[in-house]
Amino acid sequence: MPVSDPLIISEPQQLTADLVHLSTIIDSTIPGWTRQALTEADVVGRHWVRARMAEAGLETRIDGAGNVIGVLRGTAPGASSIMTGSHTDTVEGGGRYDGNVGVAAALEVVRTLRANGIELRHDLIVVDFFSEEPNRFGISCVGSRAMTGQISTEDMDRVDSEGVRFGDELSRVGVVPEALLSARFDTNRVKAFVELHIEQGPHLEEQGSDIGLVTSITGIKRFRVAFQGQPDHAGTTPMNRRRDAGCAAAGSVLAIERIASANVDGRGTTGLITFSPDAVNIVTESSELWGEFRSPDLDWLHAAGNKFHAAVHSEGASRSVDVELEWLPSEQPAVMDNRFIDISSREADRLGLTQSRLYSGAEHDAAILAKKIPTAMIFVPSKDGRSHCPDEFTAEKDIHSGANVLLNTIITLDRELDFD
Amino acid sequence: MPVSDPLIISEPQQLTADLVHLSTIIDSTIPGWTRQALTEADVVGRHWVRARMAEAGLETRIDGAGNVIGVLRGTAPGASSIMTGSHTDTVEGGGRYDGNVGVAAALEVVRTLRANGIELRHDLIVVDFFSEEPNRFGISCVGSRAMTGQISTEDMDRVDSEGVRFGDELSRVGVVPEALLSARFDTNRVKAFVELHIEQGPHLEEQGSDIGLVTSITGIKRFRVAFQGQPDHAGTTPMNRRRDAGCAAAGSVLAIERIASANVDGRGTTGLITFSPDAVNIVTESSELWGEFRSPDLDWLHAAGNKFHAAVHSEGASRSVDVELEWLPSEQPAVMDNRFIDISSREADRLGLTQSRLYSGAEHDAAILAKKIPTAMIFVPSKDGRSHCPDEFTAEKDIHSGANVLLNTIITLDRELDFD
Repeated sequence: MPVSDPLIISEPQQLTADLVHLSTIIDSTIPGWTRQALTEADVVGRHWVRARMAEAGLETRIDGAGNVIGVLRGTAPGASSIMTGSHTDTVEGGGRYDGNVGVAAALEVVRTLRANGIELRHDLIVVDFFSEEPNRFGISCVGSRAMTGQISTEDMDRVDSEGVRFGDELSRVGVVPEALLSARFDTNRVKAFVELHIEQGPHLEEQGSDIGLVTSITGIKRFRVAFQGQPDHAGTTPMNRRRDAGCAAAGSVLAIERIASANVDGRGTTGLITFSPDAVNIVTESSELWGEFRSPDLDWLHAAGNKFHAAVHSEGASRSVDVELEWLPSEQPAVMDNRFIDISSREADRLGLTQSRLYSGAEHDAAILAKKIPTAMIFVPSKDGRSHCPDEFTAEKDIHSGANVLLNTIITLDRELDFD
Repeated sequence: MPVSDPLIISEPQQLTADLVHLSTIIDSTIPGWTRQALTEADVVGRHWVRARMAEAGLETRIDGAGNVIGVLRGTAPGASSIMTGSHTDTVEGGGRYDGNVGVAAALEVVRTLRANGIELRHDLIVVDFFSEEPNRFGISCVGSRAMTGQISTEDMDRVDSEGVRFGDELSRVGVVPEALLSARFDTNRVKAFVELHIEQGPHLEEQGSDIGLVTSITGIKRFRVAFQGQPDHAGTTPMNRRRDAGCAAAGSVLAIERIASANVDGRGTTGLITFSPDAVNIVTESSELWGEFRSPDLDWLHAAGNKFHAAVHSEGASRSVDVELEWLPSEQPAVMDNRFIDISSREADRLGLTQSRLYSGAEHDAAILAKKIPTAMIFVPSKDGRSHCPDEFTAEKDIHSGANVLLNTIITLDRELDFD
């Protein structure tokens, strides 16, 4: 098979303009760029993405799970498909890049293929996945889970801290829970998924690499810990008679930090913490914290979980505080497809781009899809490793480089791999 | 001067009934017995107290500071006065005793004096002090502060966490800030203040004493600490690159516990804590905690403050987190009048009651008044030392014993001390 020069995206300024436009569809009452799933801004954003897909010449639809899907038909009728895409929802107070880059780049890949008269053998499916970021019901990657049958009726009954049902909240933004549960794809017909994303960490910048080739995606162990002590008068109750649920929680926050810091790839984070009652003259009766451990190493994750179990019970026992440790739905580390990594590596070389192999400390739709579909991820650098904050930044040239690697990876996958 | 037998309260069942009635005037949407200042229940409760004062034969009024005041005229016109009373506001989710006991007992003292045809030389002023418990504006003992000129126009401008002004909130429950600031008493004309209160701690019960004679009231150093770190992705940011404001706050909570635990009379409590943003996949950018140290020993309080200052800055510095430690309005330890303690001690002896001397770990209106007026406090036992919670309990016979000591202390003060 003759090897032609790599293709270059035809309208990089359109890719940039799409990212700029997405950054205007936000909840402007919050600092940063916020377009959280289950909000009006997200509904508007995803309908805009669908319109851009249609302009690029894709057959578009929104599936039962709220995923925005565009299909570029291949030349081989009935052939399997290649999938690409990412998500356009954000965290609260997030940045302008994150999942947006992978969606905008996928649109530019389609425009470039059409502008160059290149027809793929396989269908190319572009997806803006619904609700990738962890929502207040403790569920992330809702769209990719639904598409691959990794979500259940039980999940619809989860409630947030105000007692609102996830299923009811979905209905409010037009996603019918029954339709979501039956939005499952025939994943056997999807032979490859490739996602372009910003790194969200500091490694590519530190190593001076243009492109990151993801070898695996971190596993996550999520948990909630509730402490039950006794409310006592803050002035009259001697320290050694207290059952202070707040101090037990504080000790556990430090245990999370300590356990994760002992391993270079370990991550441990406390997200939410509450003390009750919230009065300075009453010893804290009950407290709660939510957090997570992450690592690409499943053994380390198990060990961290065991250490944390021992630590929270020790923090509770030393203060006669009752402890309830609940492990929440978690992710196993996901391994990327080596054949795809090699193809992306070769294409990056041909494009004259420097590259590093690394694992992803962030969760992605790719981790969900990898359970069912051979998957690869391409990273571009994040300035100072910052993400999920207004300072999140990736240079335009790096985004364009990433789009070029995505484009040529898809073309090569379509040509070289014998999918059927 | 002939020493007669001690007087015994004439209608103990009325005292009990008044406490029961107060326990029905609450916010019934919250567990426990809640009648917080600045709420409708508190307005209703204080008007009921005023009506009971009038029934007991007192001249009643509500002063500009919201204090409910009843006066039993003495026989010596123009003589100085003796003051007694406490407060009927509660903490959120509090109990049925706390300040209620001192107000209900004062009413019974008046009824007993009148039932026995005893006329005092001095005016007896009974007060239900406004807003004793720390409110959400960080101000406690509002009524006793106003009465003794220890509140300022600046205090009226304090805001709660929602930005509501204290002065505006006062107006909403009928207390005019200007009237409050001019509600100051001529404290030179008040020669003694005696407050009956539940201990709220475990000492009397442990020592098997019927009555506690308070030697001093704890000093309080209140503080707010704000930590400013950096919001980063919880999966991609290595532990050693984080600026986690949540971990710095958790370390400071443990420092409060550690510093206070090193001294038998030391108390250290974290009340409120917040992490922001409250998402499990973002490293905490900013956090805040509110707390306090207490001790009857001013030197220890200063030392604890210095240790805490060092600890929070160390917790911040080790994580590159910025720290802002703010010391809030605090109380110096207040010393009770030894002459009054001796009188109460003698009266308790004559009543056949066992007694202990102890300091108060709780703040009281008595601590505010003691800055301007010779003051004493009489304690009765709290079951298991519990207070500021629904489990707060003091036996009926103990309350009646305390009322008897209060009654005879007032009679003796009126007879023996040469006030004018």
